[in-house]
Amino acid sequence: MLPYSTFITIDKKEKMPIFLQIANKTIENIKKGIIPKGTKLLGSRAMALSLGVHRKTILAAYDELMAQGWIETQASKGTFVSQNIPEIKPVSWHNNALSETPKTKTGFEFPKNAVLNKPILRGSSMLGFDDGFPDVRLAPTDALARAYRSVLKKGYQKHTLFYGDTKGEFSLREATRDYLNESRGLHIATDNVMITRGSMMAIYLATQTILNVGDRVVVGKIGYSSGNLVFKNRGVELLYVDIDENGLNVEQIAQLCLEKPIKMVYVTPHHHYPTTVTMSAERRMHLLQLAQKQQFCILEDDYDYDFHYSSSPILPLASVDTEGVVVYIGSLCKTISPAIRIGYVVAPSDLIDEMGYLRRIIDRQGDNILESAMAELFKEGEIKRHLKKSQRTYHKRRDVFCDMLQSALGHVIDFKKPNGGMAVWAKFDPSVSLPFLSEKALLKGLKINNGSTYNPDGVLLNATRLGFASINESEIEQGIGILKNLI
Amino acid sequence: MLPYSTFITIDKKEKMPIFLQIANKTIENIKKGIIPKGTKLLGSRAMALSLGVHRKTILAAYDELMAQGWIETQASKGTFVSQNIPEIKPVSWHNNALSETPKTKTGFEFPKNAVLNKPILRGSSMLGFDDGFPDVRLAPTDALARAYRSVLKKGYQKHTLFYGDTKGEFSLREATRDYLNESRGLHIATDNVMITRGSMMAIYLATQTILNVGDRVVVGKIGYSSGNLVFKNRGVELLYVDIDENGLNVEQIAQLCLEKPIKMVYVTPHHHYPTTVTMSAERRMHLLQLAQKQQFCILEDDYDYDFHYSSSPILPLASVDTEGVVVYIGSLCKTISPAIRIGYVVAPSDLIDEMGYLRRIIDRQGDNILESAMAELFKEGEIKRHLKKSQRTYHKRRDVFCDMLQSALGHVIDFKKPNGGMAVWAKFDPSVSLPFLSEKALLKGLKINNGSTYNPDGVLLNATRLGFASINESEIEQGIGILKNLI
Repeated sequence: MLPYSTFITIDKKEKMPIFLQIANKTIENIKKGIIPKGTKLLGSRAMALSLGVHRKTILAAYDELMAQGWIETQASKGTFVSQNIPEIKPVSWHNNALSETPKTKTGFEFPKNAVLNKPILRGSSMLGFDDGFPDVRLAPTDALARAYRSVLKKGYQKHTLFYGDTKGEFSLREATRDYLNESRGLHIATDNVMITRGSMMAIYLATQTILNVGDRVVVGKIGYSSGNLVFKNRGVELLYVDIDENGLNVEQIAQLCLEKPIKMVYVTPHHHYPTTVTMSAERRMHLLQLAQKQQFCILEDDYDYDFHYSSSPILPLASVDTEGVVVYIGSLCKTISPAIRIGYVVAPSDLIDEMGYLRRIIDRQGDNILESAMAELFKEGEIKRHLKKSQRTYHKRRDVFCDMLQSALGHVIDFKKPNGGMAVWAKFDPSVSLPFLSEKALLKGLKINNGSTYNPDGVLLNATRLGFASINESEIEQGIGILKNLI
Repeated sequence: MLPYSTFITIDKKEKMPIFLQIANKTIENIKKGIIPKGTKLLGSRAMALSLGVHRKTILAAYDELMAQGWIETQASKGTFVSQNIPEIKPVSWHNNALSETPKTKTGFEFPKNAVLNKPILRGSSMLGFDDGFPDVRLAPTDALARAYRSVLKKGYQKHTLFYGDTKGEFSLREATRDYLNESRGLHIATDNVMITRGSMMAIYLATQTILNVGDRVVVGKIGYSSGNLVFKNRGVELLYVDIDENGLNVEQIAQLCLEKPIKMVYVTPHHHYPTTVTMSAERRMHLLQLAQKQQFCILEDDYDYDFHYSSSPILPLASVDTEGVVVYIGSLCKTISPAIRIGYVVAPSDLIDEMGYLRRIIDRQGDNILESAMAELFKEGEIKRHLKKSQRTYHKRRDVFCDMLQSALGHVIDFKKPNGGMAVWAKFDPSVSLPFLSEKALLKGLKINNGSTYNPDGVLLNATRLGFASINESEIEQGIGILKNLI
């Protein structure tokens, strides 16, 4: 008899189930030839005794080995290691020597898209005042793990694990519908909602379905550069209008319409990105009337509606759009975690259908499992709870941050305490070079944006967003201390 | 004292943690006015006694209520319901009556993309011979739930929950690299791999980065209609070549090159989709030489490499491509579950970089959490285990299916037992109208494709794929019984 207990070792501290450990060790030893082909294995009782485990564990291990084809039973004779062990060696159809070097150069020409060729942000655990991101340390990861588990446990696996609707998991579309109707004064049906992978995909889908090459699109002179990349990649003509303390200059948009029709205005009215100013009610009304009259699309990106502090939030343009000219987008990436890529686009259903057709060829559909899990978290009230907690936390951080910033750097920074959102728009005195400051800060262990992503073409604003939401009060203090010492 | 235990009820069978149940019930009662603003709450000890729970549970509930702003502590006085309860009512900036009717019609013109306007497949629990999908009942959902949990528990949450690499989670790119090098004879580095959301997104990214409007792209006359949608949407010229028992006719491709350069050939050499034929070694070599000489891209879609039965699998074109002309794609959607949208594209790193730039504006990045979880499953051997089990299961199902199909319907169906994959390509005798049969079968509770998606423009093949992998042996018997009775 083979000394099974010496080469089938079990580690009870491992998280892998014991039956799998036994099966894996057995396979390993069959492969090495230690347990030869055709060997008769011990019966389950004897093997259980030999390895010191329950007989059911051995039965499970044998089932696993059988399913994988490593062992087979012969009626009334017992269990044997298969004669044909299931290691299939692929055959090469060509005896060329294979290249051993990974390739860096493609063997055919392809267009390099200079528009898109920009540095791409990655996560970093370094201290920093970021662009206005959430503190992922607050993310309800336990609840999310529970929700994943619960979705995967449920009986509707065929439904959840198979092809689904390109517009998103129905339960999450419903939850989003309810959440938006309740919190933003919208009056939408499920057919008006499509789940996307973050606001980014919502902008991409809107751009690809609504715009043609050469169409005229209005954005702020200071604006969202990632959004501009999507528009430029589509080959549209970008028209830039001014931003002042009331937001986007709508009078200038009206003037542009007189020249030639425009097709879309991209706007972040609640807190303009990056300057955080709120668009005035008068401007909103004017923009809406203009869009309805001229029949262009308002792409309303409400990226940080959920965070408002001193005053009550102002309802979005979408809430009073009677003519179907507003396409409204938002996401949970900025409210929970950038990695949880759940966003939405709200529009008349004919446009949502069209986006669904496009989605089919981009990535077929969203992640049913994640979307179902998020729907459960909405249902359980976990999302609202998280938002409320984050809102209070960020509110405090805003106050601490703005106070410290004013007292330590008020003489070289011009900023307004934002009434919402997750970042301050800080204009530096010309005596301080932001690119230079940013370099020096990095050496001291603090990341701040050097402002280049916010500069319109050919203009040096010497201004940046300083995010306060993702860091706690002592980190804020530490970071401002570093900046203070450098100025 | 308020009778807390009568309106703060606890359900120990609920999966929501008890402290959250207590917090939620408290909020509910504050909102209803049952616990008025300013009320002094019981101390934690007294409340614990009153509700019959541990004091730590009450402390956790109070923390939660504090964090959400429902209660506040006053030094040495105790805990009180907040005077300003955190219910923020948004203000409308406009007193227009809001539209109560969901919108179905957009208020501006947008192009309807007739190419994409096709029916979209959804999941169904009805019995059916499908296109060749996996049996999601075999999916390792417990292991996946464990992996999600483990990823969410780990210390590297900042990394996992934040913005990541647009090319995919590094650990999964590495695992995919190893898996492909090991199983398919590739010699690639991590820089040659990008994680995508299924093969669909791999085709989309390749199409958008490599092709320009008007480029010439070769596909099979009988081919993958979803892939063709992506090419057509890009505005390229599609050229169709014949398929015979050796796969794509490469001689015809060589002829097309003589006319005018071609830019891409889309091919499924391992088992041609939909006919399941394997491309011969001679054709493969010819195609590769042609691509290297003419500098066009071979887009090799190896959608079902993992499932091969009677013979050993043949290595992909990518394994002998020394010139960087093959872009190789595959996915786990067909091997585990269509809902787990993990695919990959393998190419020289300059092209992978370009796809990464494009990915940034489509949906920013993949799902870090899912990708990390899949990397764990690779590491634990769970993926290989699953593939091995599925392979054996599908092998048996293929044999049972082909035997039954031959004996019950051999007189009206012409088919070859496929040496791999998950479906049979069945050509029906002209005496049987497939569209009509499909309609009748549906009434009897069996879904089969009426063949329309496989027909080239203007040709009626009267043939369809009959998938055998997603159904067990008794379901196969039942389904074939239905067809037999209808013929």
